[in-house]
Amino acid sequence: MADFFAAHRETLDKALSAIAERGYWSPYPEMPSGKIYGETAKADGEAAFKATLDSRFALDQPSDGSWVGEEVSPYGFALGIAYPGASVEQLVTASEAARPAWAEAPVAQRVGVALETLHRLNRRSFEMANAVMHTSGQAFVMAFQAGGPHAQDRGLEAVAYAYDELRKIPGQVLWEKPQGKNPPLQLDKQFRVIPRGIALTIGCSTFPTWNSYSAIFASLVTGNSLIVKPHPGAVLPLALTAQIAREVLREAGFDPNVVLLAVDTAAAPIAKELATRPEVGIVDYTGGPAFGRWLEENCRGKQLFTEQAGVNPVVVESTDDFKGMCGNLAFSLSLYTGQMCTAPQNIYVPAAGIETDQGTKSLDEVAEGIAAALDKLLGDPERAAGILGAIQNEATLERAKAAETLGEVVHRGEPLTHPQFPQARMLSPLVLKVSASESAAYEQECFGPVSFVIAAPDAKESLARAAALVKAKGAITAAVHSTDPDFLRAAEDAFAEAGVSLSENLTGQILVNQSAAFSDYHVSGANPAGNACLTDAAFVANRFRVVAVRRPHAA
Amino acid sequence: MADFFAAHRETLDKALSAIAERGYWSPYPEMPSGKIYGETAKADGEAAFKATLDSRFALDQPSDGSWVGEEVSPYGFALGIAYPGASVEQLVTASEAARPAWAEAPVAQRVGVALETLHRLNRRSFEMANAVMHTSGQAFVMAFQAGGPHAQDRGLEAVAYAYDELRKIPGQVLWEKPQGKNPPLQLDKQFRVIPRGIALTIGCSTFPTWNSYSAIFASLVTGNSLIVKPHPGAVLPLALTAQIAREVLREAGFDPNVVLLAVDTAAAPIAKELATRPEVGIVDYTGGPAFGRWLEENCRGKQLFTEQAGVNPVVVESTDDFKGMCGNLAFSLSLYTGQMCTAPQNIYVPAAGIETDQGTKSLDEVAEGIAAALDKLLGDPERAAGILGAIQNEATLERAKAAETLGEVVHRGEPLTHPQFPQARMLSPLVLKVSASESAAYEQECFGPVSFVIAAPDAKESLARAAALVKAKGAITAAVHSTDPDFLRAAEDAFAEAGVSLSENLTGQILVNQSAAFSDYHVSGANPAGNACLTDAAFVANRFRVVAVRRPHAA
Repeated sequence: MADFFAAHRETLDKALSAIAERGYWSPYPEMPSGKIYGETAKADGEAAFKATLDSRFALDQPSDGSWVGEEVSPYGFALGIAYPGASVEQLVTASEAARPAWAEAPVAQRVGVALETLHRLNRRSFEMANAVMHTSGQAFVMAFQAGGPHAQDRGLEAVAYAYDELRKIPGQVLWEKPQGKNPPLQLDKQFRVIPRGIALTIGCSTFPTWNSYSAIFASLVTGNSLIVKPHPGAVLPLALTAQIAREVLREAGFDPNVVLLAVDTAAAPIAKELATRPEVGIVDYTGGPAFGRWLEENCRGKQLFTEQAGVNPVVVESTDDFKGMCGNLAFSLSLYTGQMCTAPQNIYVPAAGIETDQGTKSLDEVAEGIAAALDKLLGDPERAAGILGAIQNEATLERAKAAETLGEVVHRGEPLTHPQFPQARMLSPLVLKVSASESAAYEQECFGPVSFVIAAPDAKESLARAAALVKAKGAITAAVHSTDPDFLRAAEDAFAEAGVSLSENLTGQILVNQSAAFSDYHVSGANPAGNACLTDAAFVANRFRVVAVRRPHAA
Repeated sequence: MADFFAAHRETLDKALSAIAERGYWSPYPEMPSGKIYGETAKADGEAAFKATLDSRFALDQPSDGSWVGEEVSPYGFALGIAYPGASVEQLVTASEAARPAWAEAPVAQRVGVALETLHRLNRRSFEMANAVMHTSGQAFVMAFQAGGPHAQDRGLEAVAYAYDELRKIPGQVLWEKPQGKNPPLQLDKQFRVIPRGIALTIGCSTFPTWNSYSAIFASLVTGNSLIVKPHPGAVLPLALTAQIAREVLREAGFDPNVVLLAVDTAAAPIAKELATRPEVGIVDYTGGPAFGRWLEENCRGKQLFTEQAGVNPVVVESTDDFKGMCGNLAFSLSLYTGQMCTAPQNIYVPAAGIETDQGTKSLDEVAEGIAAALDKLLGDPERAAGILGAIQNEATLERAKAAETLGEVVHRGEPLTHPQFPQARMLSPLVLKVSASESAAYEQECFGPVSFVIAAPDAKESLARAAALVKAKGAITAAVHSTDPDFLRAAEDAFAEAGVSLSENLTGQILVNQSAAFSDYHVSGANPAGNACLTDAAFVANRFRVVAVRRPHAA
């Protein structure tokens, strides 16, 4: 058996340093380049993706004989992939049978399997890019990066955190208590890491790998067996992941059923039945708050980690780079057509306007500046397609269309035609102007390419409203534009108190949307947008428990 | 201002080593000796205790002007101590006001305050011993050790774990992402630790300090403000703790309301109102499962850490030291009259008897052996008083008396008279013999000096039943006696799977009841007896969150 741990030891050590130092680091190149991944990698990946279409997916796992699958590319064609169906009972039974040997394996073996799985996932990043593109609707380069290397980063980060906690638990110790002149009391103690049980990871349709890998790899490394339940609209990326993990498990001498894929349909969902099985000890969920609340109600006694929804604010007080600010905001609103959990929604601007490097700009001028930047950014169809990608599902498209009535249109959501995929579901971002009092319009998440320029009484009031909404409804990101150091300090305090991270004066290439593994703590866990963070010690430390055996020391 | 962190840095460093090595260690001497604590320490402690009786307790904190207190010593006299009363609103308002400066203080300052508080608590261990003795009913030496140094150990352990997590979070970093031939992207990032809010610690009447200090010190060090709600029957030990913590906070320049005492009465409890306040982010609870379930239902979205109840098993398969086994079991059943959460309740013995160093012993002979060991252990009134202490409350006494009908009496619970305190509530342990089928009698916690010798079909069946009950009802300890290595391995696997630690073949001075800080993980968090462990990383890592501020790097 290959020593996967030794093979990837250096990567692990660097990851352990990275989570402590929290500067930039990644072992998985984000450039979709033939020079890095091999000159034929792009073509090979596309060919592999095409070979999976209109066929049965090769995943040799327990099945009831049915074939399930209903994925449709947001770019306008049915994938036609059928996955082996299985009853919840079959999945749970197989997972339970696979777990004991996995749980008892040395930590290094589990970590080795995880690291080798990530390594093989990395080598198949082009194939994954196609799978993520044609399920999530992300444009190709984004699908490559977010679905491939950046997701792998999140997985590796979770492995590092889990290993960091597990290595603290000694295997065996002699406990020796002095008794004055008498011989010491002595006990031999053995500590055993035990898993929580089956870990259920429930994926989402927009970032099927990026939002799941932290949970998947944290649960596996800590000895749990895993059932991955993808969104029925985005199965393929997690099916590929399960396929690779099962292949590595088999090579390492484990029952591949340590990782199982649970495929369902929108009409017959199985997440509730899975989540409430007593064998399931951990549930990780990314998705909307309605099901999130159901899980909170019904998963008591289980470890539940959620990323739900938020209303991300931008508070504009002033800027010394008006053009840069508008361009940066336009990019944030456009990237993946506003379908990132990190995309801004509410842009608070003082009704009296703001001071800028171009003089005072009225509220309308700020709104027009953003609209103009959107038009410039998205003017070229090829470029627009590369930034916007496609809208994942019809509901998001309809929501965006219906939102037009919620305020005064600053930038209309226009249907666009994708140069390569004329059937793609495309829309440019809708931007609306509202007064601060129209809170019914903007004080809830309107997921998709919809944002609001909110006329606030003044910047201080903007900040107070934005922070209060973070506390009430949650947020995953917050941003501020100001040239006033005192206002920036006030914003830092207000958003820290509300429990959300803050980006200040982003006017260049970096967007508030971006969250980098090993450096940014994604989701604070301190407001209603989610109860967990990718990744910190709390994300991993309760995925396992420790029990001891103690006995008198044999002299 | 004194540099408390520097003053106790060596203790902290040793504690950090101890939680990793998990051998024996303690900086707080457990011997109630004048040589260690000062020749007058014992008399001084008793005098200080007596001075608090029948008077108003000096705790300068927000109050509504009322004076609250109803403590009665289990040794037979009313303490007559009145504590300042306060409304929940007053307490929450004061706690909220005190928190921001505490949360923003450098970690070293918070850790310093915690370590100095523990140091001063240690010096007042004799006073604390009297306070714990005359609230919990523990005998003096046990009250000294468990209420003083051992509780301080648990507090220090929590400080070390919290510090270990907090020091992982860098304050400020430069994030620098290479861009090929172009200049790197650069962000300055600042990470800020934010608390959960108010941390509420709900104490119990049997181990008011030992069971609270982990929570108290973990919550404080991670930046939360603290409201301590003692059991109305055991206020004084936590009032002393709050008094000392407030004194240290004041000296360190903080608002002493970072630590507040919330005193209530059995007739007008305030824990529910406190626990459900939105400002409260953390609830730590030690006590019965009825209120534990209420908290689970009503504290969603808060961090809830519980130690509730368990049914602790002993599986007897065979022994090579029959006398030692019976003596050790008798001590475990007697110590603090069975009022330890770690005390055994269910002793499973094969109906056909067991092999021992004294030949085969029938089930009845095993039961008689335990009963005889109890009589020997408790035969001398002074010795009995030193081991049994007193029964904390009337309900426990009544429960133990009523239990006599649950089986065949092996050892009667006899009322005893305390040599120094004739009014003390004393009873010797009741041991009953039941058949395995009489599960209604023994398959629930009967808190207090009640245990069952259960006639099981065989040892294998004993193990299966005991492990199944751990899974269903929870357990904090498990023990096994066997000379068969295969049976011991089977027991290790079965109890690990059930999620409880196991003590094997304890026949000497060490009891299954004992749990040592820095070595034993007290409560696994993996069965219904409690959802948290004293102490591991999971106990501290979610008491705080991290938010960041990121901005373009200023060249």
